[in-house]
Amino acid sequence: MTSTYFSTVKQMNSTLGALEGWLDEATTFAKSKNDFDPNVLLSMRLAPDQYALVRQIQAACDAAKFCAARTANKDAPTHPDEEKTLDEIRARVRSVRAYLGTFVEGDFEGAESRVVPLSFMPGKGMAADDYVRQMATPNFYFHVSMAYAILRHTGVNLGKRHFITELALRDL
Amino acid sequence: MTSTYFSTVKQMNSTLGALEGWLDEATTFAKSKNDFDPNVLLSMRLAPDQYALVRQIQAACDAAKFCAARTANKDAPTHPDEEKTLDEIRARVRSVRAYLGTFVEGDFEGAESRVVPLSFMPGKGMAADDYVRQMATPNFYFHVSMAYAILRHTGVNLGKRHFITELALRDL
Repeated sequence: MTSTYFSTVKQMNSTLGALEGWLDEATTFAKSKNDFDPNVLLSMRLAPDQYALVRQIQAACDAAKFCAARTANKDAPTHPDEEKTLDEIRARVRSVRAYLGTFVEGDFEGAESRVVPLSFMPGKGMAADDYVRQMATPNFYFHVSMAYAILRHTGVNLGKRHFITELALRDL
Repeated sequence: MTSTYFSTVKQMNSTLGALEGWLDEATTFAKSKNDFDPNVLLSMRLAPDQYALVRQIQAACDAAKFCAARTANKDAPTHPDEEKTLDEIRARVRSVRAYLGTFVEGDFEGAESRVVPLSFMPGKGMAADDYVRQMATPNFYFHVSMAYAILRHTGVNLGKRHFITELALRDL
């Protein structure tokens, strides 16, 4: 059976690929309007005390990157969160997807017995399995969903088909 | 190692428990305003062609229920989608949580070699592992996140701490 850690990382990579498509739809939407800088979309949010779109995408990228790195016991590449344009945030997503794409199944050998440190809680960690299920996965989907929700609310042409992408169908 | 199917179902149960808390916050929010029927919240949405809040919660409940039932090869209980009030949708969430709570690890024995049928695609199915990762999990988090986003946008007092709940911390 394929390592669940490896499959989780592959799935996050695929979902970030879907998110790249949402950014293309956002650009198309912006072009259909007049006098409107598409990069303004990155400052949109659903509530004043919520992360803006750009920060939601950065957080989704980080959730995926750290999930892979921590469960495989590697150091994640750094990204300074300085994106200001759609092109720059698209480059961030691509950079993280390229990083996720470097992982092979063998990188996760022994992950199930690993305790993963939490950078925001010094001295504490979680069993890798708990970390993926209770934190990395909900956190990742939370931020990609908020990015989706902000774009959807703005009027970008998105639907569920843009969120659930690859399905490995089989005949019954 | 605990079956990933069993842990996935437990995690969905826990997240639906968080969602119950959001409904309590929604009621508190409604009570803080004047002349406002709190059940109106169930008809809110972020875009005219998006599911309203009540349907997002029904869909999240179904995603969790079918994930458990299909991977354990059982028949899921039916829910007719007739909720009109916060009390009724809270009862739906509790009913599904009670159902998820009946599963034990042994129910998922052999799941990894099971092909799960897809009710919306006759004649087609997915390997249980692909189904959980590519469909049930993203679909579940999509709908709970949209419920969260609608309430957040409405002004209900929610933050990330209401979404990521239990973390099984360990000392390093």
